[in-house]
Amino acid sequence: MPFGYAGRILHVNLTTGKIEVEEPPESFYRMTMGGSGMAMHYLLRMVPAHADPLGPDNVLVLSVGVMTGAPISGQSRVMANAKSPLTGAIGDAQGGGFWPAEFRSAGFDAIVITGQSPRPVYLWVHDGEAELRDAAHLWGGVTGETEAALREELGDKKIEVLQIGPAGEKLSRMACIINMSNRACGRTGMGAVMGSKKLKAVAVRGHGSVELADKEKLRELARWGADNLEESGVWSFRLHGTAGGINGLQATGALPTRNWSSGVFEGWQKIWGQTMTETILKERDTCYGCVVRCKRVVETTGPFATDPRYGGPEYETIATTGSYCGIDDLEAISKANEICNKYGLDTISCGATVAFAMDCYEQGILTKEDTGGIDLHFGNAAAMVQMVEMIARREGLGDLLAEGSYRAAQKIGKGAEDLVVTGKKQEFPAHEPRAKRSLALIYAVNPFGADHMSHEHDPAYAPTSDPTTLAQLSQLGLNNPQHAWDLSEEKVRYALTTEYIYSALDCLGTCQFVWGPTWQLYNLDQLVEAVQAITGWRTSIYELMLVGARRLNMMRAFNAREGLRAADDYMPKKLQLPAVGGPTDGVSVKEEDFLAARAKYYQLAGWDQEGVPTASKLAELNLEWVADLLAD
Amino acid sequence: MPFGYAGRILHVNLTTGKIEVEEPPESFYRMTMGGSGMAMHYLLRMVPAHADPLGPDNVLVLSVGVMTGAPISGQSRVMANAKSPLTGAIGDAQGGGFWPAEFRSAGFDAIVITGQSPRPVYLWVHDGEAELRDAAHLWGGVTGETEAALREELGDKKIEVLQIGPAGEKLSRMACIINMSNRACGRTGMGAVMGSKKLKAVAVRGHGSVELADKEKLRELARWGADNLEESGVWSFRLHGTAGGINGLQATGALPTRNWSSGVFEGWQKIWGQTMTETILKERDTCYGCVVRCKRVVETTGPFATDPRYGGPEYETIATTGSYCGIDDLEAISKANEICNKYGLDTISCGATVAFAMDCYEQGILTKEDTGGIDLHFGNAAAMVQMVEMIARREGLGDLLAEGSYRAAQKIGKGAEDLVVTGKKQEFPAHEPRAKRSLALIYAVNPFGADHMSHEHDPAYAPTSDPTTLAQLSQLGLNNPQHAWDLSEEKVRYALTTEYIYSALDCLGTCQFVWGPTWQLYNLDQLVEAVQAITGWRTSIYELMLVGARRLNMMRAFNAREGLRAADDYMPKKLQLPAVGGPTDGVSVKEEDFLAARAKYYQLAGWDQEGVPTASKLAELNLEWVADLLAD
Repeated sequence: MPFGYAGRILHVNLTTGKIEVEEPPESFYRMTMGGSGMAMHYLLRMVPAHADPLGPDNVLVLSVGVMTGAPISGQSRVMANAKSPLTGAIGDAQGGGFWPAEFRSAGFDAIVITGQSPRPVYLWVHDGEAELRDAAHLWGGVTGETEAALREELGDKKIEVLQIGPAGEKLSRMACIINMSNRACGRTGMGAVMGSKKLKAVAVRGHGSVELADKEKLRELARWGADNLEESGVWSFRLHGTAGGINGLQATGALPTRNWSSGVFEGWQKIWGQTMTETILKERDTCYGCVVRCKRVVETTGPFATDPRYGGPEYETIATTGSYCGIDDLEAISKANEICNKYGLDTISCGATVAFAMDCYEQGILTKEDTGGIDLHFGNAAAMVQMVEMIARREGLGDLLAEGSYRAAQKIGKGAEDLVVTGKKQEFPAHEPRAKRSLALIYAVNPFGADHMSHEHDPAYAPTSDPTTLAQLSQLGLNNPQHAWDLSEEKVRYALTTEYIYSALDCLGTCQFVWGPTWQLYNLDQLVEAVQAITGWRTSIYELMLVGARRLNMMRAFNAREGLRAADDYMPKKLQLPAVGGPTDGVSVKEEDFLAARAKYYQLAGWDQEGVPTASKLAELNLEWVADLLAD
Repeated sequence: MPFGYAGRILHVNLTTGKIEVEEPPESFYRMTMGGSGMAMHYLLRMVPAHADPLGPDNVLVLSVGVMTGAPISGQSRVMANAKSPLTGAIGDAQGGGFWPAEFRSAGFDAIVITGQSPRPVYLWVHDGEAELRDAAHLWGGVTGETEAALREELGDKKIEVLQIGPAGEKLSRMACIINMSNRACGRTGMGAVMGSKKLKAVAVRGHGSVELADKEKLRELARWGADNLEESGVWSFRLHGTAGGINGLQATGALPTRNWSSGVFEGWQKIWGQTMTETILKERDTCYGCVVRCKRVVETTGPFATDPRYGGPEYETIATTGSYCGIDDLEAISKANEICNKYGLDTISCGATVAFAMDCYEQGILTKEDTGGIDLHFGNAAAMVQMVEMIARREGLGDLLAEGSYRAAQKIGKGAEDLVVTGKKQEFPAHEPRAKRSLALIYAVNPFGADHMSHEHDPAYAPTSDPTTLAQLSQLGLNNPQHAWDLSEEKVRYALTTEYIYSALDCLGTCQFVWGPTWQLYNLDQLVEAVQAITGWRTSIYELMLVGARRLNMMRAFNAREGLRAADDYMPKKLQLPAVGGPTDGVSVKEEDFLAARAKYYQLAGWDQEGVPTASKLAELNLEWVADLLAD
């Protein structure tokens, strides 16, 4: 059952139970190359303005890209898109694993999920077919159990399961979507959308394979990747996982600590990826077809005993449940990671929200009365784990915190608002905008809230960056590298330009550790070759930039229709305060610098002064129909 | 004396006689990659708004691109830019030959010529040095004689001479700049600007060579070109010159005939390139380093005897002095070509203006009294040759016609205005917009007036186009081919998109027969490789598109400052009349379709409704300084 780019889109109406298959023409796929960009075609057309994100009018699109399932590294990614219950804006979350490739082997490129089921169901997708099944017996179950139950029930150990945990069922705004029990489409509360629709899981099994336009060329690229992995920038991820770079962040004052009070953490060595390798690492895991093997599996015993099926913590998890909280206990962090994967919680929002609560506690805004007796001081590992579990179960203070730090602060009051560090109400990932200045801008303007994988971070474009990286960036018209602390017009240009290409990666469904413009295993020229070898499309960096810009503009158009304007692209107060200690001691991001950068960014993007895409820019990107939507 | 991209710019002030050398940084070159784009940096900064094109305030920039002089086909091009005395807008003309490569071997990338010399001078550039010399003895001479005299005077037979003929001296608005006595920077009256400055010639001799970043890679590309020439789209040019395609134009009703009254010409076979090959062709000539050898050298005897030193007629010349005038006499056409090259006249404007005068004569608007007794009926070959000579010498009616058809019609009156076929007052080149519809748009909106080498013509993007061409266009985001007669939004997108890349070619200094997005010998991927092999810059189609868009926007900004608005992007009345006979019988371009296409074009270009570049688009292209100029 071979199939190429011109695949099939599954439409599932949970209200009526009706399932339909759409077969769009090649031109439809080529315009976005799949994934998150393709999803925007449906969301813009199908979600009415001001829809309740947790109501039946919201639409959830699960999609893969045109590269997904091809036998090469870094292509097995699933994108989840819907209006976000966390931000009120467009939602977007991506995850890796084996589910994406398996889904494509089953003959589909996306599932467009509409309506709301009256009772818990799951979707069973297999070799070109799909059916809704009752999930009453699975409702309430944690991810590992549900996965096992579905494999048992459907009688195939090779079934891949994408699902929500209890957090999604309970509509936590930081609920994520999990596959393999340890891969998360983490951000913007996509798990709550799935929960609101009472869709517990999507189980998939396929025996097809992606039809390749040029098998030999792709094989050659795959071989090149395997041969050059050790010399590439991603090798450290193989060795020590994504937390292998904590030493560098610490050295540059870029490691967020104690709810963004400092960029250095005295306990950094204890939570470092290398330390993990030497202590609790059980094995290195991988996504379908990928030679990198960046995923960790850890095993711990004792008070923070964990089950290896839930994997191991990524850097983001280590920082948010670690340094954010002043915690240097890798076993406690691993436990928090396990709870999040079990219950289906975004570790970034969850850890950051606990850190926010700790900050409130330190300042007397929250007390033991609020916490139910828990001593929520920075550094209390057991308290952190307990609070994560309470969020997962929506118990006590955890029920409030499950709404995210922004909404929690609104309820708590007493100045708690000033301790919130979010972009569009979404908690900041673990990279310090005071040390990597373009993040102050991108965390604010990114259409789906603060995100660290939506552009290339500053150090790649510093004068001290390596010559190959700078040469590759020059392909994008970037020829004037700036210091990491710079937030000048040139840095804004860099941020937007790399945002376009990262946006294209989220359409293609490629992993940004493996494919990208700078330090990744494969560069953009190789990406062009790979897309061509897989799809047969003769493409170019130019076309990929168009694809990326299309997705970004469609997302901004979605937000504009929801009423979002420049004020929603804000910088949190905490960044305007000086960091304490280390290389970034005394450093802050000035509001006026941020506002100037934001204005420049809008201008370079071809948007108006409120950050709304102009008809001209939309037309330039073949998006006249989106301009028409905005004009209505 | 090796030198790479980071070369030297010669500044020559003809008022003071001062000569200076500027050595711009690499970043300056990379922003435009040289040529016409680089020239815009000087013209925008140095030419005051509303300067007299023939006064001392105008600036003439002669430039080559970063590829010029490298040992590969299609790179020896010189660009001439100044405010145009023909259009009142930005002027731009390009020519091939050996002068461009020789100039670069002499150590320079451009000459910025300011002021006005009190007496005739010529510039002698040799191996990094330059001096102004008296040219009193050369003034009034025709090109072949001047070239010979300078080689004699400077004592080197290998000197290359770029010069004006008597037409430029006499400030004909259709005067061109000639090198090798037969290669023309033809359009927009750049020869008149040179004449107004009393600069007769630029003689060059150099012994340097372009420093190559990757000699072996370039050699490989050059070898590939030689090996694949015969299978390429340019092979017919080798065989039969640029007029080899007349059969195709005739077959599609695209051969402009009798001053744009018809798209077919009954005498087409007599003026066809193949006929030339079989009759008067003496040899095939080439530009420096080029394997194509598309240039013709003809030899005729009898009443229209010609000197082979003046080369042979290109397709444009054959059409404008042939079918435009209803003339099928290849020897008369060759004679007209010789006169134009001798006197330094643009064959397109000259032939088209004679055709316009013939049309006036046919309609009784001009009479024998006006023509000095010449029977200026369509089809009278001797009369055509005589009129070309009169224009060259500015004698009788020729003095008025030397101002171009637009200005002549204003003087003649009596409805002559309706017979003018120009874009920004510049005569249309020989491609029928009624048969290749995007030309109706591009002839109008092109900043330097009607031009046929500023975008890719329609047939390349028709559903019937060959798959490789369509695949290459898809690299530019063009995936929806349209019929050649279509002028829909998609065709506008195609026109603008290919205009960007053609604009980049005029920066790089590459020949659009050899390098380009469709049928050319080398495609855009190979162009990227070549730029990289020559300059060491890691570039991409994306960066080249930025470069091209920069030049186009700088030109439009120049025009905007001169007060040009949408009304200056007009379509001549003749196109709104039905063509007569052949496949385009009864076909016209509707004004409303043209206006809709123009509005769409402005929108896709990121310009306002008057066609003025917006600050946002300029910023996107790193041209904030241009936006500042417009804001002043």
